[in-house]
Amino acid sequence: MAYIRLDSKAFFHNLTAITNELSKACPTTPNLALVLKDNAYGHGLRQMAHLAKEASIESVFVKNYEEAISIAQLFDTITALYGEIPPNAPSNIWASIPSLQALESCITAHKNAHQTRNIELKIDIGMHRNGIAINELDSALAQLEEAEHIKLAGVFGHNGYGDNDDESFFTSVQAFREITDKVRKWCEARNYPMPRFHSLSTSGALRLGLHNANGNDLGDLVRIGIGAYGYHTSELPLHIALKPIASLYAQKISSLYLKKGDKIGYGGVSVVEQDGVFSTYDVGYGDGLLRVDSRQNLTCASGEKILPVMSMDCFSCQSEREEICVFDDVRAWAKEFGTIPYMILTHLSPALKRVVV
Amino acid sequence: MAYIRLDSKAFFHNLTAITNELSKACPTTPNLALVLKDNAYGHGLRQMAHLAKEASIESVFVKNYEEAISIAQLFDTITALYGEIPPNAPSNIWASIPSLQALESCITAHKNAHQTRNIELKIDIGMHRNGIAINELDSALAQLEEAEHIKLAGVFGHNGYGDNDDESFFTSVQAFREITDKVRKWCEARNYPMPRFHSLSTSGALRLGLHNANGNDLGDLVRIGIGAYGYHTSELPLHIALKPIASLYAQKISSLYLKKGDKIGYGGVSVVEQDGVFSTYDVGYGDGLLRVDSRQNLTCASGEKILPVMSMDCFSCQSEREEICVFDDVRAWAKEFGTIPYMILTHLSPALKRVVV
Repeated sequence: MAYIRLDSKAFFHNLTAITNELSKACPTTPNLALVLKDNAYGHGLRQMAHLAKEASIESVFVKNYEEAISIAQLFDTITALYGEIPPNAPSNIWASIPSLQALESCITAHKNAHQTRNIELKIDIGMHRNGIAINELDSALAQLEEAEHIKLAGVFGHNGYGDNDDESFFTSVQAFREITDKVRKWCEARNYPMPRFHSLSTSGALRLGLHNANGNDLGDLVRIGIGAYGYHTSELPLHIALKPIASLYAQKISSLYLKKGDKIGYGGVSVVEQDGVFSTYDVGYGDGLLRVDSRQNLTCASGEKILPVMSMDCFSCQSEREEICVFDDVRAWAKEFGTIPYMILTHLSPALKRVVV
Repeated sequence: MAYIRLDSKAFFHNLTAITNELSKACPTTPNLALVLKDNAYGHGLRQMAHLAKEASIESVFVKNYEEAISIAQLFDTITALYGEIPPNAPSNIWASIPSLQALESCITAHKNAHQTRNIELKIDIGMHRNGIAINELDSALAQLEEAEHIKLAGVFGHNGYGDNDDESFFTSVQAFREITDKVRKWCEARNYPMPRFHSLSTSGALRLGLHNANGNDLGDLVRIGIGAYGYHTSELPLHIALKPIASLYAQKISSLYLKKGDKIGYGGVSVVEQDGVFSTYDVGYGDGLLRVDSRQNLTCASGEKILPVMSMDCFSCQSEREEICVFDDVRAWAKEFGTIPYMILTHLSPALKRVVV
């Protein structure tokens, strides 16, 4: 059976490297929170959550309630970035609130709750995707003042421009700074406990770090995403070496001795150039890989070309190995398909076994 | 929460249409077996298995033992196309044997078993992918003669040329005919029960049907795959109207009033041309969609353009709808990404809720 190998040492290395780099530039090292959404970017939520726990991570971000509840016993705070949280959910599962409508719905749902729900207001700081508009913030705070069983535990934005070499990044930094100031004053005036503030991912934090930001600008925590998994997708140079932690291994299904001119697979796209042994291995696009056809030139980690076209459950190559490493780094896959490593990784089927080493 | 809607009427329509078409050309209507592998081509294994049961399907094909055991109570025979079957697995789970090595391994594993395992020999009939080579068939039969607790219940090939308008298809038909004759004689000489023979998928069966094949040539069953799910991927014309059964629906996360010139999403790729309300919806490439960027032109079923670039968990479009149908047919997605409907479908995340209507 094909499986994904997760390299725990590489994961711990990445976290340490990012922490060290941020510590260089900032007077106080910010807390690292880990983004575990979308099955931990395809790596396997359960396995990555346990590794994160081992690395003393206390706050994590997941996609929704279903992901949150599956790891609820492991962390102090688990923020579900999308969807609603049922009122009886464990209190360490925090709700992200992306709109006034969602805030109202959350307040209504918790009116007769037996416990307090921690929420984090998501504010649009420039990506114009989801989030409460800056000019709606007063209205959100007013709603919160009246709400029962709801606690403002966080205010966050998503500065999605950390990867882009232009000014949008700093515009968003400034927008979040103003929001932070406003909410701080609002809480102080009412003697409310201060929520946590955060807006940066790996690339954003490193970029701001390079500009000698003070600790406040990095926020109360930095949400480490793809960096922890070993990838750097920024246009900007990175001064630390991250290591991909996921490798995909496949097992041989069968071997055939083929002759020059024999065709392989659907449509007979691959034609044997020289007599030899060809084998099929047990992963295909049904396992979440993108379907390799004659436009891509991809090899296994040990150099064997993946022969087009890939099937749903297997691919062919000229090899007799019992086991083959399909990839130990997905950048070549992302490049050949004109996409980003995130997409290659998040598509990996949850049905593939994960083995932590 | 986003969800996949499965149209049961469309599914039953497709099965009936295929059966009727095959009945026209063949004296005896062959049994339809359903391929449910890879989470029923992404549709949802459990839901599709129950619909198949309702349609009186008795034989199904799945990817591996894990898929087979999850629906073991529903069918007379469930063939796991890949991987091994543990000796204590229910007896209605049949093993596919793609190589002499796999046969030996299966025989060894079942030596001390308390029950008989039904196996189906997979023979390479021209795709040169997996399967026992034709010249290895004698050796396989000899091994079987000595084996305990193993019953030859099926012999099959995969004629993967049903979609291609060339002669390879008929070469494979002839190869499988010879294999069938040989195994039949072998069984008759030993007074062994006759295994079932099959080599055709939807397109292959329809193609052979058009050539006025006799019942024998269609085999003891036809393995219906993508056709049952409403897609036809052949270069050859199809004379029946199939209906896609899966539609993807997403829910609104939040809306923002944006002005001309405002940018949306990562990299600010989409620029607002006219003031208006834009919303984000809760599916993205982390749910298994391919990541829409500026090279694709894709709209929701109701016409709204999916604005590039798609995020991991959401996409933006100019709409205020609370719910939006992202697709009710994936052919446009396959075309825009230069791939096939199978890939779009199999990548749909198993975590998305499936709703049968």
